[in-house]
Amino acid sequence: MKHRVVVVGAGFAGLQMVRDLKAAGCDITLIDQRNHHLFQPLLYQVATTLLATSDIAWPIRRVVSSRKDVTTLLATVEGVDREKREVILKDAGRVPFDTLVIATGARHAYFGNDHWEVDAPGLKTLEDATTIRRRILMAFERAEIIDDEAEREALMTFVVIGAGPTGVELAGIIAELAHRILPREFRRIDTHRARVMLVEAGKRILPSFKEDLAGYATSALRKRGVEIRTGKPVTDCSADGIVLDGEPVAARTIIWAAGVQASPAREWLDAEADKAGRVKVSENLTLPGDPAIFVLGDTAHVESGGRQVPGIAPAAKQQGTYAARTIRARLAGKPAQPPFRYSHMGDLATVGQNAAIIDFGRFSMKGRLAWWVWGVAHIYFLIGARSRLMVSISWLWSYFSGQNSARLITQKDKLRG
Amino acid sequence: MKHRVVVVGAGFAGLQMVRDLKAAGCDITLIDQRNHHLFQPLLYQVATTLLATSDIAWPIRRVVSSRKDVTTLLATVEGVDREKREVILKDAGRVPFDTLVIATGARHAYFGNDHWEVDAPGLKTLEDATTIRRRILMAFERAEIIDDEAEREALMTFVVIGAGPTGVELAGIIAELAHRILPREFRRIDTHRARVMLVEAGKRILPSFKEDLAGYATSALRKRGVEIRTGKPVTDCSADGIVLDGEPVAARTIIWAAGVQASPAREWLDAEADKAGRVKVSENLTLPGDPAIFVLGDTAHVESGGRQVPGIAPAAKQQGTYAARTIRARLAGKPAQPPFRYSHMGDLATVGQNAAIIDFGRFSMKGRLAWWVWGVAHIYFLIGARSRLMVSISWLWSYFSGQNSARLITQKDKLRG
Repeated sequence: MKHRVVVVGAGFAGLQMVRDLKAAGCDITLIDQRNHHLFQPLLYQVATTLLATSDIAWPIRRVVSSRKDVTTLLATVEGVDREKREVILKDAGRVPFDTLVIATGARHAYFGNDHWEVDAPGLKTLEDATTIRRRILMAFERAEIIDDEAEREALMTFVVIGAGPTGVELAGIIAELAHRILPREFRRIDTHRARVMLVEAGKRILPSFKEDLAGYATSALRKRGVEIRTGKPVTDCSADGIVLDGEPVAARTIIWAAGVQASPAREWLDAEADKAGRVKVSENLTLPGDPAIFVLGDTAHVESGGRQVPGIAPAAKQQGTYAARTIRARLAGKPAQPPFRYSHMGDLATVGQNAAIIDFGRFSMKGRLAWWVWGVAHIYFLIGARSRLMVSISWLWSYFSGQNSARLITQKDKLRG
Repeated sequence: MKHRVVVVGAGFAGLQMVRDLKAAGCDITLIDQRNHHLFQPLLYQVATTLLATSDIAWPIRRVVSSRKDVTTLLATVEGVDREKREVILKDAGRVPFDTLVIATGARHAYFGNDHWEVDAPGLKTLEDATTIRRRILMAFERAEIIDDEAEREALMTFVVIGAGPTGVELAGIIAELAHRILPREFRRIDTHRARVMLVEAGKRILPSFKEDLAGYATSALRKRGVEIRTGKPVTDCSADGIVLDGEPVAARTIIWAAGVQASPAREWLDAEADKAGRVKVSENLTLPGDPAIFVLGDTAHVESGGRQVPGIAPAAKQQGTYAARTIRARLAGKPAQPPFRYSHMGDLATVGQNAAIIDFGRFSMKGRLAWWVWGVAHIYFLIGARSRLMVSISWLWSYFSGQNSARLITQKDKLRG
């Protein structure tokens, strides 16, 4: 019988693992609760109307359709029976494994204030993105139609909480939307007057970037009209707005980009985890004491060179590649690989059109050229020629016409009903 | 003070009216409960994964952004105060008018069986389309994962009720999806074995087309594996499937393409209507006894040359143009136009790749050439160069690669929860 590999989660880590196990002679089952692989680094562009949902999501089945050794299942995992070596699915039986790979990612976290989610949604899935898109667009629509001045001001105040790359990118594009794209379409309100606030509890924005790059991003955001408030924590989120260090700010649209919590894999495995729920793994990315179970990507707490590996796509892919190599070595009876080592390629973030920062460690870039490099790099990492073509057209179209392609209000609000 | 024109509904009729009132010196308010104009003739392609939602929907504000005489409001109309000459909005006050244009379209109708909607949704909005898309894709996913043979057969049975152009187009593309696009992606089920049924109570499919064209469509559908059942009514729809003239057919996916009911404008106006709720209008498209109120498109029962004008996009546009001309003539103090006359351009329908029928009255086309003409005609009618480019690419991509671009399962099911 072939060696049975079960992979839970078709994100960057899981999919890379499956790809690198090509022709390894395994019987692979790839399980995800979604039918699509999502290119999360560009999800904020769906939330801000630049890209369509189908530009950055691909059916998992199609991605692996040429791989006869892979069976894809759309199912929700409820647990792992480590004794019987089976994954337990919801309403769909059990799947036995010889090797198990868990790469189920993370959700946003509210540090004990889960009730904030209703009014301050985070951004991890396509539905999160269309929810945020709807709220941003509806705020302008409501502001145009109502007469109450205070309510209008609250509708035209947009708060982004958390100033890592996602928060910075969201604030930058919302400001561009309000100040560059929407003004000529409204008759009663002046969308130039929209207020976009970027709030960060830490002492500066983009803490993972060098100080001069963060400084450039700060001035580029300010130039776009974004108000930056650092060093003070948000102490409440509600339908009225936020409370920032005791000061209430009336805002109808709040977006959470401040923290993540790993998926519940920890509980399935009854494993040791860090504060964010990430499973602590051995230096070969397996569960201590159970080397046939790998935990990868945002679900795992991985250390390399004494430092924690960041939760970004390249790190997840490297872990997928490492796990595939380890499985191959074991099947071939070869000696174990050296411990996993993360190789950091760099950090990228955009602030808006013609403004990006790239930190390669030894050297860095900022401004217009960095923005083009950022764009080309992201197009390169998309899956398939069609998506590359479509995203390129959408970006160039927006660049030259000043119009975004996906300004749709659809569905009911997922959280507010 | 400028003449105040209030237009309710930014579909084909309403938008055409607004366009044709350019520089007429009116103060126009365009009200819709959606933020987008929808190209309904291609909605079935969103439901069947060929096109993305943003390919066929445009923000109404953007479409009229250059028109300083137009104010767009996203609001729901609750009624019309004919005495005070005001439109009553839900939670947003009232809008006074001198001339009122109602063009609010239609919804699908179940002829007294409204409870069928949960299991047999119709296709009128983007949400309808993503709901149907989700059900089709989920049926294959569930079939792949379960063990019960009878349930698998029900999951792989797709029933389309109603064989007008929309029903024919849906059945044709679902068959192509099952037989041409999906087979190599599933490992446990053979999607070639999916059953697609097209059910029509009337004696033949496509009753508005000439008999030989309908005959061609019948054989093209059969070639694609579609089962056609005519002459027998559906007597029940439920989660189990349909009952067709006493015979139960187990099916988990049912799509309703059998009937429409006009929007509630009739009640707002307290006007006389036909059986489908369409307001009966005078020969100049206004309400009998109230010539300042126009009712257009699918909301109106319009006669031309002794026959009822069909509920298709070109007819709606012609009515919009006629209403705009009438308003201009009145403002200029010119004599009234002759009564509205509908000019029928032809009927088009596709069955699938390389198979379409076009009925121009005097001559007709079918097959591959008709399919290309159909495609070029539809691209021409889209709004803006970007959509034309994107839809062209999506179609050509699908044509040459055998892959559809928007195979996403998103959101919860609108009706089933």
